Amino acid sequence: MKASGDDPLSNLIRALRHLPGVGEKTATRFAFFLLREPPSVANDVAAALADARARIAPCERCGHLTERNPCTICVSPTRDDATLCVVETSQDLLAIERTGAYRGRYHVLHGAIAPVDGVGPEDLTFGALLARVKEGSIREMILATSPSVEGEATALYAERLLAPTGVAISRIASGVPVGASLEYTDPTTLEQSLAARTRRSSDRR
Amino acid sequence: MKASGDDPLSNLIRALRHLPGVGEKTATRFAFFLLREPPSVANDVAAALADARARIAPCERCGHLTERNPCTICVSPTRDDATLCVVETSQDLLAIERTGAYRGRYHVLHGAIAPVDGVGPEDLTFGALLARVKEGSIREMILATSPSVEGEATALYAERLLAPTGVAISRIASGVPVGASLEYTDPTTLEQSLAARTRRSSDRR
Repeated sequence: MKASGDDPLSNLIRALRHLPGVGEKTATRFAFFLLREPPSVANDVAAALADARARIAPCERCGHLTERNPCTICVSPTRDDATLCVVETSQDLLAIERTGAYRGRYHVLHGAIAPVDGVGPEDLTFGALLARVKEGSIREMILATSPSVEGEATALYAERLLAPTGVAISRIASGVPVGASLEYTDPTTLEQSLAARTRRSSDRR
Repeated sequence: MKASGDDPLSNLIRALRHLPGVGEKTATRFAFFLLREPPSVANDVAAALADARARIAPCERCGHLTERNPCTICVSPTRDDATLCVVETSQDLLAIERTGAYRGRYHVLHGAIAPVDGVGPEDLTFGALLARVKEGSIREMILATSPSVEGEATALYAERLLAPTGVAISRIASGVPVGASLEYTDPTTLEQSLAARTRRSSDRR
């Protein structure tokens, strides 16, 4: 047992508060819920946690959290070695994979630069990223961090870090989401979609 | 291991979805968070869960979820045996205990009657409640279920069930919360607070 105190309820609430966005109230709700349900529910969660933590680890090459090391994407012979997509998290990687539109490799930074939260470049996997690009087979690096303040700062940092290697650097497009109404699109997104407009005639920018 | 499939990530997400109010997206966020943190965090949650589930059970007398059976409130010699406070959950019991204003015993129903969710009286601890009242030492039963549709239905059911025993039955007051502004109080609460007004002169109702 890892519990620090000896009150199992307080220990459980304290442990559940580790979860992102979970405070005292939600943790208490979770705890009492799990205590009211049949024991199998709590045991199921505990077992799945221990099992996932034991079997899932970051891929030593790209950082993606999977069971295989290197991960299936890194070892796949059908993926394009010349294109590298840089993402903040494994969830973002999976979101891109779900589109089926990308056939290159990935690099997972495990976060974004956020001075307010005390996250600096040294906390992310920029060292491994630079080493991979220096190997020479990557020709284009797509910066697919979020179009948020932190994501933009992270993309800018990556751009400055990698520019000396001579790799081509691109950034994912940001604008009005497909299917969305302009009326309900926030002004910042709308401004960005105007600034990044592309020509529809043959003389594309 | 209790996992049904063999993909530890999917198993973990599925297990975390058991938690109240947690859907696919939140469960995925929790799972990846726990996988990125040091193993001690996930292990801490898993251990606290297993420990709490093993050591905490409903008190055989009042239903409160605690480590002791019967619970410390049921065995306390300083509490008033003549007053019984009926609550929906152990959280509600703890909320009343925090006020320090109640010195009687409790009975935890473990829910409220909610036909929409398939919860009927037979799913709650009304049988044990009736048996306790029939023992004869309880003179007043305070119905402290929530002033919600379900809580009111539950209080009404309890009232009808217990009336034949001759026990005095009371209901907690409902109205504008202390410190709240009337301007921002919802109309139903305001209507209730008007209907349940009490006289301030000596001839109290």
